[in-house]
Amino acid sequence: MSESKLNVDRAALEQLLQKRFFFAPSFGIYEGVKGLYDYGPTGTALQQNLINLWRQHFIIEEDMLEVDCAIITPSKVLETSGHVAKFADWMCRDTVSHDFRRADHLVEEVLEARLESDALARKMAEASLADGATTDAAAKAGAKKGKKKGGAPAPTKLDDAVAEEYRNILAQIDNFNGDGLGELITKYDIRNPETGNAVTPPAAFNLMFESSIGPTGTLKGYLRPETAQGQFMNFSRLLEFNNQKMPFASAMVGRSFRNEISPRSGLLRVREFTMAEIEHYVDPLNKDHQRFDDVAGIALPLLPGTVQLEGKSNPIYMTIGDAVEKGVVDNKTLGYFLGRIYLYLTTIGIKPELLRFRQHLNNEMAHYACDCWDAEIKTTYGWIECVGCADRSAYDLCVHAAATKKKLCVRENLPEPRVFEKLECEPNSKVFGPRLKRAAKPVQEHLQTLPEESLEAVSAALAKDGKATVTLSGTAVDGDYEITPDMVNIERRTITEHVREYTPNVIEPSFGVGRILYALIEHSYSVRADDEQRAVLSFNAAVAPFKCLVLPLSGHASFEEPLRNAARRLRAVGVPARVDDAASASIGRRYARNDELGTPFAITVDFQTAEDGTVTLRERDTTKQIRGSLDEIVQLVKNLVNGEITWDVVLTKYELVNTVASENDA
Amino acid sequence: MSESKLNVDRAALEQLLQKRFFFAPSFGIYEGVKGLYDYGPTGTALQQNLINLWRQHFIIEEDMLEVDCAIITPSKVLETSGHVAKFADWMCRDTVSHDFRRADHLVEEVLEARLESDALARKMAEASLADGATTDAAAKAGAKKGKKKGGAPAPTKLDDAVAEEYRNILAQIDNFNGDGLGELITKYDIRNPETGNAVTPPAAFNLMFESSIGPTGTLKGYLRPETAQGQFMNFSRLLEFNNQKMPFASAMVGRSFRNEISPRSGLLRVREFTMAEIEHYVDPLNKDHQRFDDVAGIALPLLPGTVQLEGKSNPIYMTIGDAVEKGVVDNKTLGYFLGRIYLYLTTIGIKPELLRFRQHLNNEMAHYACDCWDAEIKTTYGWIECVGCADRSAYDLCVHAAATKKKLCVRENLPEPRVFEKLECEPNSKVFGPRLKRAAKPVQEHLQTLPEESLEAVSAALAKDGKATVTLSGTAVDGDYEITPDMVNIERRTITEHVREYTPNVIEPSFGVGRILYALIEHSYSVRADDEQRAVLSFNAAVAPFKCLVLPLSGHASFEEPLRNAARRLRAVGVPARVDDAASASIGRRYARNDELGTPFAITVDFQTAEDGTVTLRERDTTKQIRGSLDEIVQLVKNLVNGEITWDVVLTKYELVNTVASENDA
Repeated sequence: MSESKLNVDRAALEQLLQKRFFFAPSFGIYEGVKGLYDYGPTGTALQQNLINLWRQHFIIEEDMLEVDCAIITPSKVLETSGHVAKFADWMCRDTVSHDFRRADHLVEEVLEARLESDALARKMAEASLADGATTDAAAKAGAKKGKKKGGAPAPTKLDDAVAEEYRNILAQIDNFNGDGLGELITKYDIRNPETGNAVTPPAAFNLMFESSIGPTGTLKGYLRPETAQGQFMNFSRLLEFNNQKMPFASAMVGRSFRNEISPRSGLLRVREFTMAEIEHYVDPLNKDHQRFDDVAGIALPLLPGTVQLEGKSNPIYMTIGDAVEKGVVDNKTLGYFLGRIYLYLTTIGIKPELLRFRQHLNNEMAHYACDCWDAEIKTTYGWIECVGCADRSAYDLCVHAAATKKKLCVRENLPEPRVFEKLECEPNSKVFGPRLKRAAKPVQEHLQTLPEESLEAVSAALAKDGKATVTLSGTAVDGDYEITPDMVNIERRTITEHVREYTPNVIEPSFGVGRILYALIEHSYSVRADDEQRAVLSFNAAVAPFKCLVLPLSGHASFEEPLRNAARRLRAVGVPARVDDAASASIGRRYARNDELGTPFAITVDFQTAEDGTVTLRERDTTKQIRGSLDEIVQLVKNLVNGEITWDVVLTKYELVNTVASENDA
Repeated sequence: MSESKLNVDRAALEQLLQKRFFFAPSFGIYEGVKGLYDYGPTGTALQQNLINLWRQHFIIEEDMLEVDCAIITPSKVLETSGHVAKFADWMCRDTVSHDFRRADHLVEEVLEARLESDALARKMAEASLADGATTDAAAKAGAKKGKKKGGAPAPTKLDDAVAEEYRNILAQIDNFNGDGLGELITKYDIRNPETGNAVTPPAAFNLMFESSIGPTGTLKGYLRPETAQGQFMNFSRLLEFNNQKMPFASAMVGRSFRNEISPRSGLLRVREFTMAEIEHYVDPLNKDHQRFDDVAGIALPLLPGTVQLEGKSNPIYMTIGDAVEKGVVDNKTLGYFLGRIYLYLTTIGIKPELLRFRQHLNNEMAHYACDCWDAEIKTTYGWIECVGCADRSAYDLCVHAAATKKKLCVRENLPEPRVFEKLECEPNSKVFGPRLKRAAKPVQEHLQTLPEESLEAVSAALAKDGKATVTLSGTAVDGDYEITPDMVNIERRTITEHVREYTPNVIEPSFGVGRILYALIEHSYSVRADDEQRAVLSFNAAVAPFKCLVLPLSGHASFEEPLRNAARRLRAVGVPARVDDAASASIGRRYARNDELGTPFAITVDFQTAEDGTVTLRERDTTKQIRGSLDEIVQLVKNLVNGEITWDVVLTKYELVNTVASENDA
């Protein structure tokens, strides 16, 4: 955590998020279910704003085709996509308590604990030496500290080499499969830290929720684990809708599901989540992007696979242009989207210094991807994958086309017809049939799909020996078959192609909306310098759940009419106003409450309003207030919310109102 | 169908909807799954517009608390709510083919077919009589017609009484439970019309999709059948968020799931659908609504239960004010929402004359509702329930409170303390314990919860006989117990209550977004008077998927720059522009294509644009065009889209451009 600029008391933040109902565990009045959360009015508004900005930034600016597909997916589709076989995590069971643990998390947790213990032991040893005490005393001190934590073992120093091994493993933990994790568990005697019991070897647990469709009980379905498959299903319809033009992208915002083994870390590892996914289809021979130059100059913090395999975790800074040119990032379209993702995240308020792009390691890569970069955001839980940007190549379209026998490809009129020569084999089926019987058709097909060199050899043999041998394998009639010159006509022909047919590749930026939302909350959180009981969420106006608060100084009846008037005027200029007229709470407490909701502006109606029609305008982060006529202030709020003026500029134009009293009136 | 003003060729419409990718069956490249649909770019945009307008009309205007809750719901919650036991349809199986049929749909289909056949037979008999032919000839004609339809039976006339019975049953088909449907099937010999086979007696089939949460396989869950339960789970948090103020409403837009037995009718009966639901909490003692007067004057077409039970299906027209006053609609809040629903539906473009409000019959009512009205919209499939508006009373909060032992209620400070007298029983536990042992506590509890009259009787017996008998039942220590005056102190006391505690009632308007979307499409569909091959979807600008098309007269290179300029200018004033520069299609064909997408306006760049900077503006329904400078036209489109000016007014101010050539250039 040391290198981060995060200064968040997570317990306090979590309390705030529940109190202000950003989100809370679902079914809380029952026992609740791990990994499921409900968003309250605040979280729902925040989420909607993030999605609206996402739509603006990606779908509208780039003219993508938005779709909305079914969540329930028949098994066949996910068998083809590989999810039924491979979309799994490795799971261990405690051999005594039978609790389930995710294998990689278990290894991580235990090795990290050992390294911490090692660090502590080393620190204590150093301290003891400095004090001239014996290491024995240091051990005692450790034992004492251990006891305080409820009988935890004393700090244990590791051999330097072992500590180095641990660090190396942790840097590439995502690179281990089930067997690999099993070996680590055996080699390092990793046990369930909660019980001290041994665990079973890792077994695959499929992460999809299964159900049954219709009354027969025989049609198996799953809740989609990603929105992508639904988009692939519609590839041909979308290409048609786009008048056959390439490249193009589809996009979807929707719920996906993963049956996590042991959900934890709040919104970061949940069983149900909103994704925003883009499937951008490109020509595999040309992965350039028309607007690449718009982002080429942006410097990104990159953590390529090569760096990670050296056990390092510090990113290198490189412009996207350089990264593509040097082959660090595979192609311009992938690079373009990394840049666009960076712009989106920093625009909504993610701190650039707490953001990095990490390349997937080979074993970690999803079964469909040929290259993948994650936008990771630093939170108090560590670096969290919030956006994946994968090159899925032609994998999905190819497997679905093969399984359904439907063409999922682009046909492009060539500007110039392509003329080339080709050795072709034309079988004479009248001779073939009687001669080879059941094998006639397979042998003909075999000849027609032979690569040019092999066909050349057949042709040569026929010319030289008057016969040639064809070997079938993988058919119902495997074996050697003799063919003679009367059976085939092999000759070089000139082919003219007017149309090129190809399966596009897919570049997929995939956003976890809940993770981004949570990371943004942490990055926006702070406490007042003068009062650490007063927390603030400094959302910018575009993402803030509520834009402007309207409140009366007190419960005085004369405030009611101007209050309603102010709210109505704000709504009329398109700024949703939230009224807080809870007379029981002091003005300071109501300001504080709205600081916790992240509301950037507040209009206060006070005794002067009745006299001269003026109101005050307070800005959340500075807590400074100015005064003006209602008309003036409403217009100002509109411009502030739309980003047409900044608060800094406003402060140069207006006198400050003394607000010490109201701020402290809590 | 005769009374409707619908004139829709459904086959043609369906073809249009697939071609323009409003929606299409999900997983179409596989076999597909019945009852699942994907929305394409057009349908997605239309759906979003409907939802945005809904948010504006309900959530924003009425300051509702929007939430976003989990879809996966643990079994316990739905056991409590009654869905596990009662959320079912009645299902029959063909005794030979084993196909599943929904029992009520089967009865409906067969009886309707018999009535049709009867009507035909009567018509033929009439015709024959008029022609002076024998009824024998009429029967022959029928037989002939029957053969044409592939061996269907000849029209069969029913006894007048039987026909009347059938019509009566159909008018209240929703009122039959499983046994009732079973009796109809036996009595009228109803068989699977596809096979002619008998069917099994109706059995209940639960409509929820079941799954298993987590790796243990022991935590059963369901996909939510409605969003309501998630909202109820959060009742206390929301009341707290609303500063304990009543009444208030929560709202949610999200996906729900029903495992339909045999989905049919396109978007109207699907297994996965988007709902928009409101849970409005009211004081059971005061179901008035602050804004009732806003809607009281609206006349609604109502079909109360009493009218239906008479076998009638013509609505009565009544203002909402009258309907509530006469007790046709139970209370003002229910009436208020019926009015708001009417306004929403007619604003988006549902035709008022194809809309009615039907009250649920007693047996049809969901297990939780005490009164329910459906907004039904007429489509080519008949009258379709699109919005339900139910009074769920305190049912849900009560059952969840009981199951969880959590308080789900409102505590209200009384303006004046409530002072009243009450007979109270104070047991002397020192005597109770030794005397009654294990029964002591149950007997004490029994006495303390006795109604006043019974307690009076106990008190009288103690005074008269020096003893009284208490009878316990339903406890572990059932039996008679004697108590004596030393054991209790029963006296009349004056109670002062400062707080009133009550469980609110819930009024629930619940919208099926997909059904409304489909009905709206039918109501917006027409074909050009001069060319029935040319279809138009006359969406108003607020709901239209795309607002303005920008297109060049032809593929001429000089059009490119002004085209892009026009699109940019439109976007700058907040009107999303869709460019159709497919050079291969004629201008007329491109207009026609966008008429099918329902795009209300089109700006065309032509040769005159290069000369004087003017463009033409075409309106979809009239196909009329005017001409003006780009600035002027862009501003006009903005005002048209925002509803600040109408096309009729525009036509009075501009000269028409001759468009015969371009419209016919298809």
